[in-house]
Amino acid sequence: MGMNYSLPESFTSYRDTVRIELRRVIDDCPPSLRDVLGYHMGWQDESGRACDGESGKFVRSSLCLLSCEAVGGDISQVMPAAAAVELIHNFSLIHDDIQDASCERHHRPTVWRLWGQPQAINAGDAMLTLAYLALLKLREKGVPDEKTAISTQMLTLACLELCEGQYLDLEYENRFDVTVEDYLDMAAKKTAALLGVSASLGAYLGNECSGLVDCLRIYGKELGIAYQIRDDIIGIWGVKESAGKSAGDISRRKKALPVVYGLQNSRGAEKERLEELYAQESIEGGDITEVRRLLEELGARDYAENLGEQYYCRALAQLAAGGLDASRQAPLREAACFLVKRNF
Amino acid sequence: MGMNYSLPESFTSYRDTVRIELRRVIDDCPPSLRDVLGYHMGWQDESGRACDGESGKFVRSSLCLLSCEAVGGDISQVMPAAAAVELIHNFSLIHDDIQDASCERHHRPTVWRLWGQPQAINAGDAMLTLAYLALLKLREKGVPDEKTAISTQMLTLACLELCEGQYLDLEYENRFDVTVEDYLDMAAKKTAALLGVSASLGAYLGNECSGLVDCLRIYGKELGIAYQIRDDIIGIWGVKESAGKSAGDISRRKKALPVVYGLQNSRGAEKERLEELYAQESIEGGDITEVRRLLEELGARDYAENLGEQYYCRALAQLAAGGLDASRQAPLREAACFLVKRNF
Repeated sequence: MGMNYSLPESFTSYRDTVRIELRRVIDDCPPSLRDVLGYHMGWQDESGRACDGESGKFVRSSLCLLSCEAVGGDISQVMPAAAAVELIHNFSLIHDDIQDASCERHHRPTVWRLWGQPQAINAGDAMLTLAYLALLKLREKGVPDEKTAISTQMLTLACLELCEGQYLDLEYENRFDVTVEDYLDMAAKKTAALLGVSASLGAYLGNECSGLVDCLRIYGKELGIAYQIRDDIIGIWGVKESAGKSAGDISRRKKALPVVYGLQNSRGAEKERLEELYAQESIEGGDITEVRRLLEELGARDYAENLGEQYYCRALAQLAAGGLDASRQAPLREAACFLVKRNF
Repeated sequence: MGMNYSLPESFTSYRDTVRIELRRVIDDCPPSLRDVLGYHMGWQDESGRACDGESGKFVRSSLCLLSCEAVGGDISQVMPAAAAVELIHNFSLIHDDIQDASCERHHRPTVWRLWGQPQAINAGDAMLTLAYLALLKLREKGVPDEKTAISTQMLTLACLELCEGQYLDLEYENRFDVTVEDYLDMAAKKTAALLGVSASLGAYLGNECSGLVDCLRIYGKELGIAYQIRDDIIGIWGVKESAGKSAGDISRRKKALPVVYGLQNSRGAEKERLEELYAQESIEGGDITEVRRLLEELGARDYAENLGEQYYCRALAQLAAGGLDASRQAPLREAACFLVKRNF
């Protein structure tokens, strides 16, 4: 896992189309909101001028469109759903950055750093609302109203899970007794629910009515957990340059999987020291290095990598279980491989 | 306008039914979110025990149901929409309280005071999501999917206007050159859009397809502006005991209508003094009394009361324009009268 994996073609091929759809939704906003949201999305600088910033990996929209293609659907019909899941993700990022007091995202100041917390809360709210506006464009694509209504319900339930996961993630920050099981419950909600619905919406709207929709939902969920575990590993051991993030997850005392495992499986002096480090308001400097070393000695990194691998395999097993042809599985396998083995 | 107006029967008669619908939606939440949201709604105390706190006036749900009845619709069918608009309102209150750093609502600590800002942001997000879940229960009532989809669109557009209005409201705090026109634009979005969609959803789902839906939307919008103006007057001159709020709108330097008018229409020493008072980080003690006095001398209170009266009359005119029988207009007229003449 030491190599540098770049975005696979299955991801990059949809990027521009998704970006156009997202811009169409956000550009329809009143100018005030458009500037903040356009900045967050990376296509405007803070004074509203066009720029070419990073918009993220478009993981959720890609999963949606790949699932649609895997069941033989028409991706242009499904584009509103792809935009919607991406907007939900971005709403949660804007609020996340406030909640975690994160100063940077994609090497730029976060929205709250530039516009202040009150306007950043509001920008996130607008982004969440826009997700529904984006999804409702399904009607313009000729998708039957019943499917639009059911899609809205699917998205809403996933969004509620996301909120519950976020509640747990925040709550865990102040606890030392979080178990691996607690962690997996949180990751399933905070991250995997949205990846699950991204994949299932793609299949559902791609005109698949069989159990395949459910297989793809589970594929997305298992993959989502593997993805979150990978994120945790990068958050602790990742290099700032490649990840666009520092060891911020340590300093913010996030209960990332390796930390949860470490606290749960250490004894005596090691446990005491780890708890002492995590009892601080913030973890800085040499203490970060010490946390990394303690976790490595406890086997927490290996444990997390192995568990991530297990969820990755479970995701792939769903593709086989769904009965997809090998050729139709290929792009979804490639996407999964990238998501759980990436270094950024 | 010196008398004490109590809630009219048209409001109290629906209260319990709406509360049951709201509880049904919120009680379906995971326990973590349910406790925070149930606290905000007033039916739980901070430790999760049932209590009988204040839930607000249920203005938006009442308008929705009154409009439905006015067009001869079945209120039980429209209940999901009534719950949805109330949830949208409450999501905005939870976030508003963070944005304004308000410590109290309905004589109790605000959500962020008890759970902290990060969890309060998350609770508001969950409440917004629940509004969609509530609305989608239209499907269980046998409402056709097309109507459900269109209702979702109507609600979403109003919610986006609300976000834009909130943006403006926050942005005005740091400006001295806000005009009455700017103010009305903000109030139309921040407050009136949701009252407008509340009334129009009630009529639309009450099976009215004519221009009456539009008249009721405008009725709600005009009334919403009058309602916001009344809120501003109460926020400056209201008594703490009856309003459940102090002169917080002054101390937080809100650009309430009387203040906007005062800044725009003062000259010389008066203008200088008012600007000096509003240049402070926060306005406290004797300065609050002075702001009140200055505004009264400038005729700002009379101006606001007159302008509110004008919007109130325009709201009533829409009822007549819509061609509703006098008997069908009566509850909507009564509701409007209460909303713009109340003291709390």
